Amino acid sequence: MADEDERAAVRALLDSVRASGRTTLTAPEGKIIADLYGIATPGEALARDVDEAVAFAHRFDGPVVLKIVSPDILHKTDAGGVVVGVHTASEVRSAFHRIVANARAFVPDARIEGVQVQQMLPPGQEVIVGAVTDPTFGKVVAFGLGGVLVEVLKDITFRLAPVTGDEAASMLDSIKAAEILRGVRGQAAVDRWAVAEQIRRVSQLVTDFPEIAEVDLNPVIATSEGALAADIRVILSEGAPVERPRFSREEILFSMNRLMKPRAVAVIGASNEEGKIGHSVMRNLVDGGFAGDIYPVNPRAHDILGLKAYATVLDVPGEIDVAVFAIPAKAVPAALEEVGRKQIPAAVLIPSGFAETGDQALQDKVVAIAAEYQVRVLGPNIYGYYSTWQDLCATFCTPYDVKGPVALTSQSGGIGMAILGFARTTKTGVSAIVGLGNKSDVDEDDLLTYFGEDRNTQCIAMHLEDLKDGRAFVEAAREVVKKKPIIVLKAGRTSAGAKAAGSHTGALAGDDKVYDDILRQAGVIRAPGLKDMLEYARALPVLPTPQGDNVVIITGAGGSGVLLSDACVDNGLKLMEIPPDLDAAFMRYIPPFGAAGNPIDITGGEPPSTYEATIRLGMEDPRVHALILGYWHTIVTPPMVFAELTARVVAEARAKGINKPVVASLAGDTEVEQASAYLFRRGVVAYPYTTEQPVAALGAKYRWARAAGLLPR
Amino acid sequence: MADEDERAAVRALLDSVRASGRTTLTAPEGKIIADLYGIATPGEALARDVDEAVAFAHRFDGPVVLKIVSPDILHKTDAGGVVVGVHTASEVRSAFHRIVANARAFVPDARIEGVQVQQMLPPGQEVIVGAVTDPTFGKVVAFGLGGVLVEVLKDITFRLAPVTGDEAASMLDSIKAAEILRGVRGQAAVDRWAVAEQIRRVSQLVTDFPEIAEVDLNPVIATSEGALAADIRVILSEGAPVERPRFSREEILFSMNRLMKPRAVAVIGASNEEGKIGHSVMRNLVDGGFAGDIYPVNPRAHDILGLKAYATVLDVPGEIDVAVFAIPAKAVPAALEEVGRKQIPAAVLIPSGFAETGDQALQDKVVAIAAEYQVRVLGPNIYGYYSTWQDLCATFCTPYDVKGPVALTSQSGGIGMAILGFARTTKTGVSAIVGLGNKSDVDEDDLLTYFGEDRNTQCIAMHLEDLKDGRAFVEAAREVVKKKPIIVLKAGRTSAGAKAAGSHTGALAGDDKVYDDILRQAGVIRAPGLKDMLEYARALPVLPTPQGDNVVIITGAGGSGVLLSDACVDNGLKLMEIPPDLDAAFMRYIPPFGAAGNPIDITGGEPPSTYEATIRLGMEDPRVHALILGYWHTIVTPPMVFAELTARVVAEARAKGINKPVVASLAGDTEVEQASAYLFRRGVVAYPYTTEQPVAALGAKYRWARAAGLLPR
Repeated sequence: MADEDERAAVRALLDSVRASGRTTLTAPEGKIIADLYGIATPGEALARDVDEAVAFAHRFDGPVVLKIVSPDILHKTDAGGVVVGVHTASEVRSAFHRIVANARAFVPDARIEGVQVQQMLPPGQEVIVGAVTDPTFGKVVAFGLGGVLVEVLKDITFRLAPVTGDEAASMLDSIKAAEILRGVRGQAAVDRWAVAEQIRRVSQLVTDFPEIAEVDLNPVIATSEGALAADIRVILSEGAPVERPRFSREEILFSMNRLMKPRAVAVIGASNEEGKIGHSVMRNLVDGGFAGDIYPVNPRAHDILGLKAYATVLDVPGEIDVAVFAIPAKAVPAALEEVGRKQIPAAVLIPSGFAETGDQALQDKVVAIAAEYQVRVLGPNIYGYYSTWQDLCATFCTPYDVKGPVALTSQSGGIGMAILGFARTTKTGVSAIVGLGNKSDVDEDDLLTYFGEDRNTQCIAMHLEDLKDGRAFVEAAREVVKKKPIIVLKAGRTSAGAKAAGSHTGALAGDDKVYDDILRQAGVIRAPGLKDMLEYARALPVLPTPQGDNVVIITGAGGSGVLLSDACVDNGLKLMEIPPDLDAAFMRYIPPFGAAGNPIDITGGEPPSTYEATIRLGMEDPRVHALILGYWHTIVTPPMVFAELTARVVAEARAKGINKPVVASLAGDTEVEQASAYLFRRGVVAYPYTTEQPVAALGAKYRWARAAGLLPR
Repeated sequence: MADEDERAAVRALLDSVRASGRTTLTAPEGKIIADLYGIATPGEALARDVDEAVAFAHRFDGPVVLKIVSPDILHKTDAGGVVVGVHTASEVRSAFHRIVANARAFVPDARIEGVQVQQMLPPGQEVIVGAVTDPTFGKVVAFGLGGVLVEVLKDITFRLAPVTGDEAASMLDSIKAAEILRGVRGQAAVDRWAVAEQIRRVSQLVTDFPEIAEVDLNPVIATSEGALAADIRVILSEGAPVERPRFSREEILFSMNRLMKPRAVAVIGASNEEGKIGHSVMRNLVDGGFAGDIYPVNPRAHDILGLKAYATVLDVPGEIDVAVFAIPAKAVPAALEEVGRKQIPAAVLIPSGFAETGDQALQDKVVAIAAEYQVRVLGPNIYGYYSTWQDLCATFCTPYDVKGPVALTSQSGGIGMAILGFARTTKTGVSAIVGLGNKSDVDEDDLLTYFGEDRNTQCIAMHLEDLKDGRAFVEAAREVVKKKPIIVLKAGRTSAGAKAAGSHTGALAGDDKVYDDILRQAGVIRAPGLKDMLEYARALPVLPTPQGDNVVIITGAGGSGVLLSDACVDNGLKLMEIPPDLDAAFMRYIPPFGAAGNPIDITGGEPPSTYEATIRLGMEDPRVHALILGYWHTIVTPPMVFAELTARVVAEARAKGINKPVVASLAGDTEVEQASAYLFRRGVVAYPYTTEQPVAALGAKYRWARAAGLLPR
């Protein structure tokens, strides 16, 4: 928005502030920047004498505020340097003299540059617009309501800067008290476009000038006719921002493809000795059925598990894609040099003993060697990784071989083991499980970029404790989310303390709220807990994408229907208002005391035919977009009978090209466990003993479909 | 608080309002009541002429408001009948005349009783105090902040009326914006006692006069020096309140003991025909091993399952405690007559076809017969009930025989079946499972009263969709909670629409918020979903009661530690600040790169001895009150090794009289499932693949311990 001249003017101003040894801009300096960036502020001018003050007050046409301007007076009010509600020329004169006198009394040798004459703000809704520099996400813009709502209730929302006008406008709806802006208690709605424009311009300012650490417009007075920033506070960063190395998309895909689909793998530290990591990795590679070449590297062995061993990777005759390290940390740098010289593009560092145990220097050394030879490094401090479609188990854990559409990553080894156990017990089909550990190099955005292109992966689930580069993650996620759902379990969400910050917005930017808003902005589904992440990852690829918002509950147990309805509201799902003709159609199948409407209560004593007829009707009516089934175990319709008929009706519909998500809650004796598993394998996301879980899975699918632009938001 | 004279004065006033055909009191009438009940209001008096107005204004010492008083003018402002900010005597005079003239212009023949002169309120925090008559809970008192906070954010809290001063004060802490009352942005804290006193007095008023349907003090202006109700609105109910029949505690215990511990059971509609409910019930009674007498009742059978059959219960020679009905609904009244004449104290009505299918009349008839003969009725429309310690399966479902400490009830049959299946698959020890169905008579408070006394029951879980008599439930719950935890799954929590109400408070009293606050007030643990209710019921009796707030996390996986910490915050648990000596003691057992503090990260590669030593330390140090364990599956310490050592250390501690709750999250391959089950059976609440669930169980135990007064709240 700001053209080159305007940017140059801001640049000159910031340079002059720096030159004066300051990092905080004065109000007039802030005003100049606001004017250059089109950030609407009240009429304001610096009066160097009393006559100028009177002239400005006259020009602004309304009551004004007078404020002392002095680099030596920071807290103007304490110095008696502010007078509000000045109407007439004579009032302006007397206020001007009083302010100057007060200032001189407060700081006798104060350099007084003049008196700022500012148009008084109309009554309206106070809001806050700000920007901060987040250590993870960089420039982030914030919006909230003024006063107690942000301060006590922390009702504030964040987005990556810069934002478009639409994104900015979405922030007005993202606060809890959004209704206030739409007008309550007889107040008119605020001019949303004007407020959004303030947000957008602030986000552009901090994007254009990365050295601006924080901006606060506090308050902005929003009325039905506009939005004026009453105060603008601009703070420059102390040091220069650190730029992280970035790889191009092509570079990332090249190395990740070599890592995830290797033709040849070397195991450095391969061993014949049971109990050693180098033995477990070898055994898993061999037993896992990896079809490519496996090169054990061990200077003291002739062969390992029947494969010829090499003293170093340099002795291996063929090309190698991946070097898996199973040697002590201190031996890694030398071996990595050899990996580099062999031009192996990917190193998997299983050993621990780096940054996580305090040896940051060793880790830095490894990263430097890797950078020198352009080796991408996974880890260190990881369990390794699985690439199931390649039959590749490059890990010391137990092998996993159920091929399927879910890629999972974890920052922690413990969580990786939980992923493995859960996947195995639920028979979840997996495309990859990857340990990220210390993330010295390869991180979530590299893998996201790869999984986004990987045809075997339909859903990505990631456990993370931090992001090295939140912005790169968001960029990668935004692209991938258009095609596949991404589920994130962000750990440490409640541990964030208040950060030291010079601005109001900065003080409000607790880690987790920023993560939460920006992950949502990126279209990521955030799992509230570990089990949720695992269940979403298992369920989402099973469910077809809904084509619309109309969800229908068909239940044999009225009690389940009520709980399923509760869960729909919790998950933002819309219970369809059943049209009269469809209502009548359902009523034909259910007893007179059953209830159509939604939930459709077919009542508990019904035979299989009633379930079958109503489910078929729900599948085949094109106005229905998703089905939630509530099953009640009875002698008349036992669990497996229900499961078989449901799977059959759903399969018949799919054969006709009808793809709707169907989820089911099974209430009954233990046979419902078998019935749920049967249904899950046949594309119906079914759970026993819970009404919440199936609806949560459907809710996650809907959230993704909206984020992917496949449904209206 | 109000003495007899004052109550008589209120009575007389309310009678006069009724006599005049009104249900809404005028402001002066409200003021009279406020004065009689000590509800502080601004100085106020009705001036019948202008000189009186001047005198009152002088007496109130400050600016005043003048308002017209006329039974013919409802909306004073519209009529130009209000003038605010009147300071001097001459201003009072001119305002008085203007108001009267405006009123006459608005309603020419208005009966003008005078002008109300009201002390203007000091600036302060606006709050709302109110009371409504809830269909479930009766008189309920409400408190919230004024303005957008209640209207947009619905930040309001409820309690059963009457409240004590302490309960009233707790309401000030129960709103989200509680911090505002403690003073923010340089404002002084409000006088909490004065606000609480307003709440208490309103709650007493509606308790003393049940015919008062709603009271609104809106706003109350709270300052550091007091709280004044600016406006009091009192609305009388249209009809007389319906009193439900109540049984005494002794009566309830007598009949519930006969129901739950019967010596003789009759089955009306017993049958030899497989597939019939009367057959299933008989088979379950016989196969379940019930040791008392079983009398099949069937006029067309000689014997059933080898037991002599009787034509009617009247033909049975001995005494009968329970008659289980397995006959069609329409045959129930006649058979119930016979049950009454036989003086059987409890009837279990399995059949459906009553209120739930629209036949309220049939249900009313049954209730009337039962009342006539003093038969307590369970159901109708239920699966029956289990009383495991009596080997009693009086149900058509499959038998259940794992005796244990958990009593469960459900309003819905489907949920009952889910309870059964879950209990069976998790081997949960159960004392009773009871279907409540239509709750035509016996309901949750009857069963609570019984389970509270039942020595076999240590924990009670109830699924409910409504309460017939919320007040009776709360009374029963308050008594029981002192001894045993009560878990409630309240279904339908999101379906409550806004109710038609004449007051502000009434409009805000959505069903669920009232339920939520009052169940919490009663000390009940509310489960967010079905699975949670089942898991809490399974876990709570396993966990000893914590003796203090200090929770310590010991984990082999740093990643689990972070997620477990998150879960602690979510569940209101306090991570102990480890004292230096204890920190040093832990550090002796863990590697130098491990972390003491809390979570204590023993790191992943450690042998069983490290887990054992740190867990023992946590068990034996008396400053630690609860342990959360995070296990990470490794070859060095496999799952069952961890489970065995943990169970042993816990058992050793218990043998020494150390009873602390211990929960565990097991991250690993599928063997962690077996290890979790092993631990659960040995008193450690352990779950695989989840960090949330074990901490949620511990959180529920803490919530109960606080509600029971065993820990500071």
